[in-house]
Amino acid sequence: MKLYSETTRHLVAVDCIIFGYDIAEKEIKLLLFKRLIEPSKGKWSLEGGFVEENESLDEAASRILRKITGLGSVYLKQSYSYGEVDRDPGDRVISIAYYALIALCDIDKDLTLENGVHWRSISVLQDLIFDHSDMVKKALADLQSQIKVKPIGFELLPERFTLVQLQDLYEAIYQRRVDRRNFRKKILSMGILKRLDDKEKETSRKGAFYYMFIKENYERLKKDGFYFNLDVN
Amino acid sequence: MKLYSETTRHLVAVDCIIFGYDIAEKEIKLLLFKRLIEPSKGKWSLEGGFVEENESLDEAASRILRKITGLGSVYLKQSYSYGEVDRDPGDRVISIAYYALIALCDIDKDLTLENGVHWRSISVLQDLIFDHSDMVKKALADLQSQIKVKPIGFELLPERFTLVQLQDLYEAIYQRRVDRRNFRKKILSMGILKRLDDKEKETSRKGAFYYMFIKENYERLKKDGFYFNLDVN
Repeated sequence: MKLYSETTRHLVAVDCIIFGYDIAEKEIKLLLFKRLIEPSKGKWSLEGGFVEENESLDEAASRILRKITGLGSVYLKQSYSYGEVDRDPGDRVISIAYYALIALCDIDKDLTLENGVHWRSISVLQDLIFDHSDMVKKALADLQSQIKVKPIGFELLPERFTLVQLQDLYEAIYQRRVDRRNFRKKILSMGILKRLDDKEKETSRKGAFYYMFIKENYERLKKDGFYFNLDVN
Repeated sequence: MKLYSETTRHLVAVDCIIFGYDIAEKEIKLLLFKRLIEPSKGKWSLEGGFVEENESLDEAASRILRKITGLGSVYLKQSYSYGEVDRDPGDRVISIAYYALIALCDIDKDLTLENGVHWRSISVLQDLIFDHSDMVKKALADLQSQIKVKPIGFELLPERFTLVQLQDLYEAIYQRRVDRRNFRKKILSMGILKRLDDKEKETSRKGAFYYMFIKENYERLKKDGFYFNLDVN
């Protein structure tokens, strides 16, 4: 093993894949920006930044996320590290990718505009710079497997939502249809949703009850050995 | 965003969690070595090394693994990246952890001795330097979920194995008992094992047939939409 002092040092960045859910368009979106510096200036990019001397990887990811979204307390998870020598044509940069889940309504719109970032449909993937589309694909695959076994989908919804809206979210993430009866039966049988008294009446005459996710119920059930499972065909 | 040239550079290491399965002792082991340099000289450590200028993270992990084990073609998977500022008291080092799966019988014993590395029971976890025990715990949790859904357990076994030996392996990784009838029924129904003509006769008078994993069968079935699933109670 080489001694520490004789060793090559590297640029290390954190890139944030910021997923948002557009409840009206029933679509997962990505918070992207047009890159301000060469190489690839003007092209669509994930939000990223270099890891500073006195911050951990998690802290760097939180800092970048807060700068862009104005949000401090957001679901943020390390995804995968990318280290191909030539992945960034500007210089060798090792990048640790994180993904965040945000309800679009939580975003401060002015801050977003000021930073020049935009919510873009996930279908623009092929236009991203460097290996950013690989990063998004890997994070999305992880999200698809995680929402089956953890109640993280609620991070992408407003506090109150209908069961149809919840199912729409799962269908947007899975990118396939889900059986309506099974989905409702499974989610309601868990005992982690609370039905509210008022109804959403814009999309149907009859209206649909609003629900809320009760995190305390989930935490209590989990302690007793309960497993969240929304693996529905 | 800072320009590349103004930015702090970091030491980046790769640490390899090398899992081996001891078929006689029915135990998962770790390939560890006594650290040769300060800090923490003489303490048990994972095998690691710094990422060189012209190699990717995957290449660095393969290089370290080959140096220690003499093996070129081994199951190797990136696990998680560790970046706490003070995780290594010698200097700030960002480390990307990988885990490898090896059948103990594949190891060149002489090379192992020459490198001063040893197979140690996973129960020595608390004695590892730095955050290496966290690295092992996270990799083990990932292995526990991966062997349910991918046929990677076979990487830890010799080419020929009995069903009892396969079940012992799953029990060692899950760290709990598994129902014998369900396990046999599930694994045999998949059509990915081939029963050989000869028997293992050391552990029982009647003997137990040897089996082999037929990777081609698995790959063909997977193409047709088959999911490996060994989630057995």
